[in-house]
Amino acid sequence: MAELELDAALLSVGADLPWLTGYTAMPLERLTMLVLPRNSPATLVVPRLEAPRVEPVEDLFAVRPWEETDDPIAVVAALLEASDAGARAPRLAVSDRTWAAFVLRLQDALPGARWTPASTVTGPLRAVKDEAEVGALARAGAAADRVAAQLIGGEIRLIGRTEADVSREIGDRLRAEGHQAVNFAIVASGPNSASPHHDAGDRVIRPGEAVVCDFGGTLDGYCSDITRTVFTGPPPGEYEEVYEVVRAAQAAGVAAARAGTAAEAVDATSRARIADAGYGEFFIHRTGHGIGREEHEDPYLVRGNRIALRPGHAFSVEPGIYLPGRFGVRIEDIVVVAGDGSPRPLNQADHALAVVEA
Amino acid sequence: MAELELDAALLSVGADLPWLTGYTAMPLERLTMLVLPRNSPATLVVPRLEAPRVEPVEDLFAVRPWEETDDPIAVVAALLEASDAGARAPRLAVSDRTWAAFVLRLQDALPGARWTPASTVTGPLRAVKDEAEVGALARAGAAADRVAAQLIGGEIRLIGRTEADVSREIGDRLRAEGHQAVNFAIVASGPNSASPHHDAGDRVIRPGEAVVCDFGGTLDGYCSDITRTVFTGPPPGEYEEVYEVVRAAQAAGVAAARAGTAAEAVDATSRARIADAGYGEFFIHRTGHGIGREEHEDPYLVRGNRIALRPGHAFSVEPGIYLPGRFGVRIEDIVVVAGDGSPRPLNQADHALAVVEA
Repeated sequence: MAELELDAALLSVGADLPWLTGYTAMPLERLTMLVLPRNSPATLVVPRLEAPRVEPVEDLFAVRPWEETDDPIAVVAALLEASDAGARAPRLAVSDRTWAAFVLRLQDALPGARWTPASTVTGPLRAVKDEAEVGALARAGAAADRVAAQLIGGEIRLIGRTEADVSREIGDRLRAEGHQAVNFAIVASGPNSASPHHDAGDRVIRPGEAVVCDFGGTLDGYCSDITRTVFTGPPPGEYEEVYEVVRAAQAAGVAAARAGTAAEAVDATSRARIADAGYGEFFIHRTGHGIGREEHEDPYLVRGNRIALRPGHAFSVEPGIYLPGRFGVRIEDIVVVAGDGSPRPLNQADHALAVVEA
Repeated sequence: MAELELDAALLSVGADLPWLTGYTAMPLERLTMLVLPRNSPATLVVPRLEAPRVEPVEDLFAVRPWEETDDPIAVVAALLEASDAGARAPRLAVSDRTWAAFVLRLQDALPGARWTPASTVTGPLRAVKDEAEVGALARAGAAADRVAAQLIGGEIRLIGRTEADVSREIGDRLRAEGHQAVNFAIVASGPNSASPHHDAGDRVIRPGEAVVCDFGGTLDGYCSDITRTVFTGPPPGEYEEVYEVVRAAQAAGVAAARAGTAAEAVDATSRARIADAGYGEFFIHRTGHGIGREEHEDPYLVRGNRIALRPGHAFSVEPGIYLPGRFGVRIEDIVVVAGDGSPRPLNQADHALAVVEA
């Protein structure tokens, strides 16, 4: 905050607050906000009915409950004005996911303030995981791997069931393997597999189809995220060709993800493999995203992101090819840059072309 | 928008967008935003990889996909500038849950604009449910009722299990009864029941305890939300007394919720019953919140909200008493104001004092 000349941070919903304090704000219309001046003590402004959820941490922050008929915006403004940030037009960082309705009301209450997203401070710090965080990501990855193995091994039946039904089963299995929360379970079959963020729906999976399964959850506060694509029965030659291009592009991306490499260079490596095979226009998303307390966070593996990877960076490597109206293939692992600078995949589930219910 | 002199609405995550268009933005770092000028055609700005999720609606809006290396903020700004809102410093409504990071970048890109939360437009409109919406809320309520009956009837075992385990089972049962999503399942036992928004945790439920169970999900786009408090074994006299005060306060609140009554008057009615019984200081939250596509939306039953209830308003009535370190009781139903102005409860699960595993 000193480097960026910020006077205070205001942290509400999202991962910055639990990362700093262990407390997660409820994503509701009652404001929870940590007021964190650069040089004065911090205060957690919290609805009174949620105050019993806060486990006080000695010397970390004070708790300021507000009543249902109080104005929490006024409480935050008063705390700022009483702090070392109060004497001047303060520069304030507000957590990226804070609701617009609160930001606009805070701007009205603090007309002289200048505003910036808190990720300018927290993004680079949160992106570098310490040993305990890498351990948590590895446990989450291993749990997701077990579900992926159940998928690839055919324990999770596909043919004749709806995508939504399979999605529910994957979610149940993520929980059974230790996740406390299921964040998403994309099941995209047949032509739907060409839609990268398809919502699992009522479509019934049939023989002879690609099925992209992309799922993740939260285990001990850290996220998993894995994608495997399987085929229901013997695949046609074109699927085999596309699958192999994606597999090689994914492996090349992982191998490129070494300390000192620019984030965008990992993207370029995977992308070049796909472009060289003639499928460049069908790889319609970036190669990956950082992961930690949030499914998507810094660093992003995308053209234009010149940040150099360093030990502790954790991210997905997930190239795909999507042929509209026909089929898609995506393969994804989480990778962490190890202490020696080498890429360490946190997912080990098989990458070979998988045929289920042949 | 004309009444409020707004030039355009910018709708991102939250319920305004699906309410208007049927499309739900993914809550991710890639911006989805409907640009809706007052007098020009609307455009949905959406990440290219999510464009296949959009089901086009004839004449409702155009779709403008953006590529991974585009700047979606610039796309939104250009669309506004090309619209009838572009000629002047526009007054813009932005959906309440839009991420702060996007709001701040939009403010940089549109320095002359004035901003207001979109709920100033959409809140009063969304608060009044039409017949189809009341039907959806009733179906969700009936599904939640069936789970509540399973709780009260003892089908859901409590003693010897952790709160988290019971919470998971309630979630599974909400899905089994037809909910597509589980939004929350509070299970608060013993002293935890005095924490209104307790997170179900590792505490093992024992005989002789109050257990507050507050749960809800989404069924066909509309939310359920119900609370019942049960006791594991024969309760002491004080629990019986507190339970009866809450039961009577909840019933009085429901009876007061007629067309023409101020929202705050319903709160005052329930609150007076609890205060008269000597527990006023232990009812630490408002009496209720509107419900629809979101668990919490307009109208709020809280002191200071003088809006008159009208047919189609749907909301919770959920007073509670919380004795710190000891126990709590809350009872909640969803109520809609019927066409004849009378309150129609959408939950029918038994309100009588329930003893389970006696």
